[in-house]
Amino acid sequence: MTEMSSVSRPAPMEGGGAYNRSSSVQAAGLSPAVPLFEQAAKTVQLPITPTPIVIADYGSSEGRNSLAPMSAAIRTLRNRVDPECAISVVHTDLAGNDFSALFQTLADDSDSYLRNNDAVFVSAVGRSFYEQILPSDSVTLGWSSWALQWLSRMPAPIPDQVHVNATRDATVRATYFRQANEDWRTFLKNRGRELRHGGQLVVLTMALDDNGDFGLRPLAKALYGALLGLADEGFIRPDEIKRMAIPMVSRSKEELAAPFSENEQFAGLSMIHLHVFNSEDQNWLAFKTDHDAKKFGARWAAFARASVFPTLALGLDGGRDDPRAAQFVNKFEDGMAVRLAAAPEPMRIPLANIVLVKNAS
Amino acid sequence: MTEMSSVSRPAPMEGGGAYNRSSSVQAAGLSPAVPLFEQAAKTVQLPITPTPIVIADYGSSEGRNSLAPMSAAIRTLRNRVDPECAISVVHTDLAGNDFSALFQTLADDSDSYLRNNDAVFVSAVGRSFYEQILPSDSVTLGWSSWALQWLSRMPAPIPDQVHVNATRDATVRATYFRQANEDWRTFLKNRGRELRHGGQLVVLTMALDDNGDFGLRPLAKALYGALLGLADEGFIRPDEIKRMAIPMVSRSKEELAAPFSENEQFAGLSMIHLHVFNSEDQNWLAFKTDHDAKKFGARWAAFARASVFPTLALGLDGGRDDPRAAQFVNKFEDGMAVRLAAAPEPMRIPLANIVLVKNAS
Repeated sequence: MTEMSSVSRPAPMEGGGAYNRSSSVQAAGLSPAVPLFEQAAKTVQLPITPTPIVIADYGSSEGRNSLAPMSAAIRTLRNRVDPECAISVVHTDLAGNDFSALFQTLADDSDSYLRNNDAVFVSAVGRSFYEQILPSDSVTLGWSSWALQWLSRMPAPIPDQVHVNATRDATVRATYFRQANEDWRTFLKNRGRELRHGGQLVVLTMALDDNGDFGLRPLAKALYGALLGLADEGFIRPDEIKRMAIPMVSRSKEELAAPFSENEQFAGLSMIHLHVFNSEDQNWLAFKTDHDAKKFGARWAAFARASVFPTLALGLDGGRDDPRAAQFVNKFEDGMAVRLAAAPEPMRIPLANIVLVKNAS
Repeated sequence: MTEMSSVSRPAPMEGGGAYNRSSSVQAAGLSPAVPLFEQAAKTVQLPITPTPIVIADYGSSEGRNSLAPMSAAIRTLRNRVDPECAISVVHTDLAGNDFSALFQTLADDSDSYLRNNDAVFVSAVGRSFYEQILPSDSVTLGWSSWALQWLSRMPAPIPDQVHVNATRDATVRATYFRQANEDWRTFLKNRGRELRHGGQLVVLTMALDDNGDFGLRPLAKALYGALLGLADEGFIRPDEIKRMAIPMVSRSKEELAAPFSENEQFAGLSMIHLHVFNSEDQNWLAFKTDHDAKKFGARWAAFARASVFPTLALGLDGGRDDPRAAQFVNKFEDGMAVRLAAAPEPMRIPLANIVLVKNAS
């Protein structure tokens, strides 16, 4: 285990079901990856019975957004194996993730893959996917959605911003992209160990579009603006903002392909699909229908709150236990919502779809 | 899934590390079962490589008390298999259990079996062990400690008490013991499915001693007394106490053996060891050394708080979200501590050690 202070590592998504409730942008973004996962389930090499089929979901948060891809894969696999053949789904996330919300979702949600599915089992692993966290050669199908843009740690403070894509500091930018390249390789190495020969892994992650644009500019602007607003009113100190950073990098197509360029293989994996696309902005679509600017702002603010606020709150003087933490996220969310409602505009959301296969021995 | 209101089901142990901190009585009580588990690891039939060895820990809470038995089993198994042979430990508990505390314990505790152990993996399942929660024929070694006295549900209110062992109502008592017998069989049936042929399961659970005594009488008295005290001062209503009950039964040796009496087998399992013993009262031993009655009371009150208060709090008018919930557990703990400190006396803690083996096919 590397030694890092809690500030320098990203925090899990907001608990108590908040991420489940406020991740419809992610749900829409990942939907084009579901047919890829279904296709993987159709073509993947299966273990010989009675070895159970293991599906790993790397970066599950509270599970709501994993139900569609897992159900699709289970349905497809069930057509290929006996009804009594066990299929195990392992959801992984950071130790601090709200696994109770995950298990409750699987017990209660009408779309849960545990419903009407005998011989399907669920478990969870609360460890970073930048380590090997499952036995070697044990995973048949892997899925990772909206998770890999999170780095293993914050490689440096960002003096003038909280997201590296907005900084003017070229050195900081280079440091983050170097960390992103290293983390991508670490991720691949560990999945290369965990996947069975012939196993497949589908990854959906935030990306840079062909112009090198991260997208989500109005969101990033509202986010930093709202933070400065909280400092202006004296609720937080400028020094606290300086400690805040989102250890997140959207990689370019070239960076995602780079590990595979030399031998067409990396860590025993081949990349059989790589596609960068622009996801539809669900909140903008809703605004074009309801013309409700307030709702538009509230939706994007809730997206930011559930995903990046827990990490930003670590920068408060008292960290996650700071007495202002609860009020901080509420005021921060309000500040963002007001800014985004003032001038609604559509956002670009560049994402990458990747399919990897472990080379059959 | 059976439909039950949240009041009628037991709640998980107190979260935030409280159970880890306040379960030294349980740690002492389970220690005689560790050599049995070690012996099981020595003699159990192992799967053929590369099938991973799975150890299941049924009712783990936050994991602190599982470290010693898991480490002992892993050490023993490692002597029998190659260093690269994967050993997977699956900790199970109710969905609402604090799995973050569990994963944090495994990452940070100096006694964690993940330290200095390659090819050992951890996962968790947040589902009741009164269902099948792991694939059939997948578990090599099973462990369950201080968990099986919890029933699957509260079968009836207890009008004059909160623990069935203290009630004078024979009908209520019979209802609880009937539920306990049914639950024991349900537990065995599901473990019978999950264990591999030749797999072994060690169970430590609260029991009745040979005189039919549940023990812990001063504790039960202080617990009910403190509740009445809270009603006397108007902090809770008598009706709320009426809704409170601990769905827990200590079974007799005869009841534990009963499923096996007819065919010497039940659900494919044989009982190869059953021993009822009286566990040493750690808190009394400490009192005999430090003569600190206040500490004695505080220790036992913390024991009750971490284990049974979450379930009792469900009886408040607002259930787990009752605005008085936090103050209720603090005042309740204080009330118990004062009562127990007033007249320290040793407690009997009858426990049963059981070893079951799945019959090799």
